[in-house]
Amino acid sequence: MTTPTLGPTDQVLIPFDEMRAVLCQIFERHGTSAEVAAALADNCAAAQRDGAMSHGLFRIPGYVSTLKSGWVDGKAVPVVEDKAPGFLSVDAANGYAQPAYRAAYEAFVRKVRANGIALLAIRRSHHFAALWPDVEPLAREGLVALTMVNSMACVVPSGGNKALFGTNPIAFAAPRENGDPLVFDLATSATAHGDIQIAARAGHEVPIGYGVDRHGEPTTKPKEILEGGALLPFGGEHGAHKGSALAMMVELLAAALTGGNFSFEFDWSQHPGAQSPYTGQLIIAIDPSLTSGQNFAQRCETLVQAMADAGQQRQPGDRRYEQRARSMAHGVPVDAAQWQQLLELAGPAHA
Amino acid sequence: MTTPTLGPTDQVLIPFDEMRAVLCQIFERHGTSAEVAAALADNCAAAQRDGAMSHGLFRIPGYVSTLKSGWVDGKAVPVVEDKAPGFLSVDAANGYAQPAYRAAYEAFVRKVRANGIALLAIRRSHHFAALWPDVEPLAREGLVALTMVNSMACVVPSGGNKALFGTNPIAFAAPRENGDPLVFDLATSATAHGDIQIAARAGHEVPIGYGVDRHGEPTTKPKEILEGGALLPFGGEHGAHKGSALAMMVELLAAALTGGNFSFEFDWSQHPGAQSPYTGQLIIAIDPSLTSGQNFAQRCETLVQAMADAGQQRQPGDRRYEQRARSMAHGVPVDAAQWQQLLELAGPAHA
Repeated sequence: MTTPTLGPTDQVLIPFDEMRAVLCQIFERHGTSAEVAAALADNCAAAQRDGAMSHGLFRIPGYVSTLKSGWVDGKAVPVVEDKAPGFLSVDAANGYAQPAYRAAYEAFVRKVRANGIALLAIRRSHHFAALWPDVEPLAREGLVALTMVNSMACVVPSGGNKALFGTNPIAFAAPRENGDPLVFDLATSATAHGDIQIAARAGHEVPIGYGVDRHGEPTTKPKEILEGGALLPFGGEHGAHKGSALAMMVELLAAALTGGNFSFEFDWSQHPGAQSPYTGQLIIAIDPSLTSGQNFAQRCETLVQAMADAGQQRQPGDRRYEQRARSMAHGVPVDAAQWQQLLELAGPAHA
Repeated sequence: MTTPTLGPTDQVLIPFDEMRAVLCQIFERHGTSAEVAAALADNCAAAQRDGAMSHGLFRIPGYVSTLKSGWVDGKAVPVVEDKAPGFLSVDAANGYAQPAYRAAYEAFVRKVRANGIALLAIRRSHHFAALWPDVEPLAREGLVALTMVNSMACVVPSGGNKALFGTNPIAFAAPRENGDPLVFDLATSATAHGDIQIAARAGHEVPIGYGVDRHGEPTTKPKEILEGGALLPFGGEHGAHKGSALAMMVELLAAALTGGNFSFEFDWSQHPGAQSPYTGQLIIAIDPSLTSGQNFAQRCETLVQAMADAGQQRQPGDRRYEQRARSMAHGVPVDAAQWQQLLELAGPAHA
């Protein structure tokens, strides 16, 4: 096992495949099927590999405590339902969203190519992960993809005084002719819940505008946001109504349209340790080869060049691709103590 | 003609149908076909009726000068192309987007109902109007709808130093069981270009964060933003990269995917007086009757109730519906001098 330290930072560099195997072992040891373990490990290892730390290994203890609590079914078998030529549904059966998506993926892509556009509506699902891994593969197949997932009530609607929306991220991916896909993944909240948790653990303050305390007052203390307070929608002083409108759209598309729960509807009070929201997810993909005029991936390249010429140094997704290349060449950076904990969670074969 | 004044505000109240008829006459007198005039008049009169002043009668002089400049073809005949079961394209043939949309509308709705989801890709089109009138009718037919249009380079990408994106609005509509549809229409720029123009005419300042001057420095002076400066993406100090990512998505979906121009690609320098961007528009609609589980419009009602319970006083679209009811009951409020100018533009029958 290759775990060279990085000196004073207490980081180790773990080969990607080794990390993925340890994650599979952790998931299976805590009650998932092999299929579910593979889907979750792929997602989590990819986030860590790409430097998306708040959705990488940081999430593993949350997955484990959720599985232990009985809140999610780690062995759920998703049921795919063909509703119409462009409309595919999946009942995740109280399992994770990623294996449900995987079960429907090939049929979904066939529908997109046959119809020009199709949607995949996942319900009764738990999404506890970064969202961009759900759209990047579609762009690598030449498709344009958009996805939304609602989560758990922690965001105050614009003008309101009570948490209602989830952080409700939107992710988008589009193929380029000469480079990795353009991919973004943005919370419709002022920041991601995971980033507030990380700031709380690290003892950092957060900027004003990120959240409010239990009295609805603006605060810079992450603990006040997490304990009875709430996040604000993104948009800033004059634009939070726009972030709030987008968060509402995510509730309607990811929950109402799929048949899943709204972010404020599920009750996990009987499952102490549960952390994954039990909601829904919508994925829409388009086949741009039907476009009139020029090749879409070339056009995307034209826009990328124009953004660079306008002074935008990095395009959406670039930071992840840069870290991905380093991780694959040298190993994935992991906090040494965190890695030791994960090996313990994985059990005897790795302990 | 009923034009009672409103006292010191110098407003007149014009019956909706009379206003619409005057607008039709203006458009036809300045070179559009009767079909194009009807589509544009419906849109503009609806915006004024609903209190969306920056996209109401305020736009008419811009339409007229654009038509006079020869930049747009007011008699263009759109060509509808059936690309795939879920993919419809329209070549607007250098005409306005609204008549192109109208030409494809019925076939589009049939595709949505047959496939569960469909898209309408409009290219070579001029969109100089509010966007919500394009989605509200779909929601009134029980469909969920999303549309995006790119415009003209006036927004700096996040981290950049040059205007590149348009104000690139996104509009969304969803049907409710017990009320008018939930509808929002938001510019991905910090504010709409029309609102900056109105502030400039009124001599008002705008908040910091709305735009930069010709040197890329933040400014509160609308004229400095309009004359060589640029708007910023929405999102505020810590979230403008999100607004910028959404603006990029609009360029890709409304232009690259449709076969239209990016916001920075068209050259109207040979057409002094031209104001309407020559780009593209994407409309996506979904039939929520295929949803697993409960009725979508009922679920929408549940969310509306929850938003009200969380303290959100007005739901997206409510302000427009309230003004609409007043306008239909008492006449549409119009500045008296503006109305006189419009009557002159309409020519002899009304002058």
